[in-house]
Amino acid sequence: MAISFCHVLRLPSPPKSSLFSPPLKSSRIKLSAASAPSPPPSSQMDLHNQGRAKFLEFPFVSAPHRALMVNLLSKVEDRLGSQLLPCTLPLDVQHCQNESGTSQASLHIRSGLQSSPVDFILGSWLHCKLPTGAALNITSLIAYLNLSTDAPNFVAELIQSSPTSLILLLDLPPRKDLVLYPDYLQTFYEDSQLDTHRQMLQKLPEVQPYVSSSLYLRSLFSPTRIMIRIETEEGRMEEILKDHIEPVAVEVLGFWLDHCACGGGREVKEEEKAYLKKRDELVKKKSIEIDLGSNLPKLFGPELAERVMGAINDVYNL
Amino acid sequence: MAISFCHVLRLPSPPKSSLFSPPLKSSRIKLSAASAPSPPPSSQMDLHNQGRAKFLEFPFVSAPHRALMVNLLSKVEDRLGSQLLPCTLPLDVQHCQNESGTSQASLHIRSGLQSSPVDFILGSWLHCKLPTGAALNITSLIAYLNLSTDAPNFVAELIQSSPTSLILLLDLPPRKDLVLYPDYLQTFYEDSQLDTHRQMLQKLPEVQPYVSSSLYLRSLFSPTRIMIRIETEEGRMEEILKDHIEPVAVEVLGFWLDHCACGGGREVKEEEKAYLKKRDELVKKKSIEIDLGSNLPKLFGPELAERVMGAINDVYNL
Repeated sequence: MAISFCHVLRLPSPPKSSLFSPPLKSSRIKLSAASAPSPPPSSQMDLHNQGRAKFLEFPFVSAPHRALMVNLLSKVEDRLGSQLLPCTLPLDVQHCQNESGTSQASLHIRSGLQSSPVDFILGSWLHCKLPTGAALNITSLIAYLNLSTDAPNFVAELIQSSPTSLILLLDLPPRKDLVLYPDYLQTFYEDSQLDTHRQMLQKLPEVQPYVSSSLYLRSLFSPTRIMIRIETEEGRMEEILKDHIEPVAVEVLGFWLDHCACGGGREVKEEEKAYLKKRDELVKKKSIEIDLGSNLPKLFGPELAERVMGAINDVYNL
Repeated sequence: MAISFCHVLRLPSPPKSSLFSPPLKSSRIKLSAASAPSPPPSSQMDLHNQGRAKFLEFPFVSAPHRALMVNLLSKVEDRLGSQLLPCTLPLDVQHCQNESGTSQASLHIRSGLQSSPVDFILGSWLHCKLPTGAALNITSLIAYLNLSTDAPNFVAELIQSSPTSLILLLDLPPRKDLVLYPDYLQTFYEDSQLDTHRQMLQKLPEVQPYVSSSLYLRSLFSPTRIMIRIETEEGRMEEILKDHIEPVAVEVLGFWLDHCACGGGREVKEEEKAYLKKRDELVKKKSIEIDLGSNLPKLFGPELAERVMGAINDVYNL
């Protein structure tokens, strides 16, 4: 995402986008799949609730933009909440800012219980001042599934570099090579008619296809990905967010919840698990590389960056 | 391609495009890799020369369109000709037409010697009358490599549904999952700067991105694929073909010849051969399915279609 953003605005140094940030699993509480989860200690719930409240503020974006993000998160939590652990990142990682206060970010990560097909969900927002004086706001919600299923992940990200310019990335990135697994292509992308959503948005005169400058992201995303750029005046942008983008995002998320996160019947055979594990790990590793490696220090200073990256490296053995 | 074309023109039944037609290997002469190829019998060379002459006519397209195709084929033959067997398809398969003469096609296939990394090259043109009365012309040149290398294939296809409307597909379709093989992505697509060609064409005001309605094709093609639609007046179309499309196509083909077909150093390890073989075979099989299965009978009648499909099924054990 960082690269795609750099492409949009031709920044000398790409700011962080949280899209593919990994979960900080050191905060994960492991519960036995067999036992019902006992409620987390109240100190952990405090941490979760405080961070969550800050995250849900989405303080720098328009009301329809905020409403869209809150709606998506609610739908995920309504459906999957009972399978998710609280977010227990340290508060200063859940919400961080640089010394001058020009960069701020909020990070909300909830890992799935061992009995859940959800690996983790990650919501975030980032606000920073651009060298031009304009503000950049990136909000995202992603969900990764674990090796109990091979169903696609979910990604929604909005990149707003001015009140009149918005990039939307909305997709179910496949977890298998679609050329090698044509049945997978058919099940999740052809039979699902997912492409109709892209076609619908593409009909709006303000909408142009958006081509990320990251070839990796272009490869990672599905053939029905929605990668569009919207250029329009401020009032109309809010209208498009409310009347067009939100309904489509809700539809795509609904499909993901029904058929991927809760679809069942996608048990992964033992011999395919190694393939899936390797691919999933590569995706996470590559995403850290693109997303955080060079950007965290620039945005939040070396100290905070080191702490966050340290936790990540620890979790992923990188 | 058939599907993508159908998307363009909203035809009730998609006409054939020859893009992914397979080679008719029953006509292939196997030579020992160790021995120098002895010249094919003169009757075979006659067959080759007659079919080639007809193929090179490209009789229904504009002069710059024809010049572009002839140029590409010449470049391939100059470089790889000594590794290629003559085309020995029966003459009425090399050039076929329906009873009423409204559909015509030319097919020129040359398999590689066993010692060559080239599996086959396939050039073709198709002309047919659309229900609207307009003519459709599709010209294409594709080249598949064999299991001695994992380097990408080459595809160039022009779909012209009127003198003022053209779709260009130009790509090196990868033969590996680019998410699972990030080094492959870097070598062939990132370090090669292949995307600059797409970016250059995209700057022309007459150029729009083209999104194929086939999700399979979107998955098959690389992240630097050029899939564009050009809408402009007739004279300007010829200018764009000559001044913009031809130079880009020559550059992309040049990269493919230098680094894929003649690049060397991409020996495939034994344990990866099975993966590559399976993927290559799936691509060919799926392409036959999309391209020929339903279209040949519609365009050329059941008898000719059956003969061609019979030969293909025989070769591929489908």
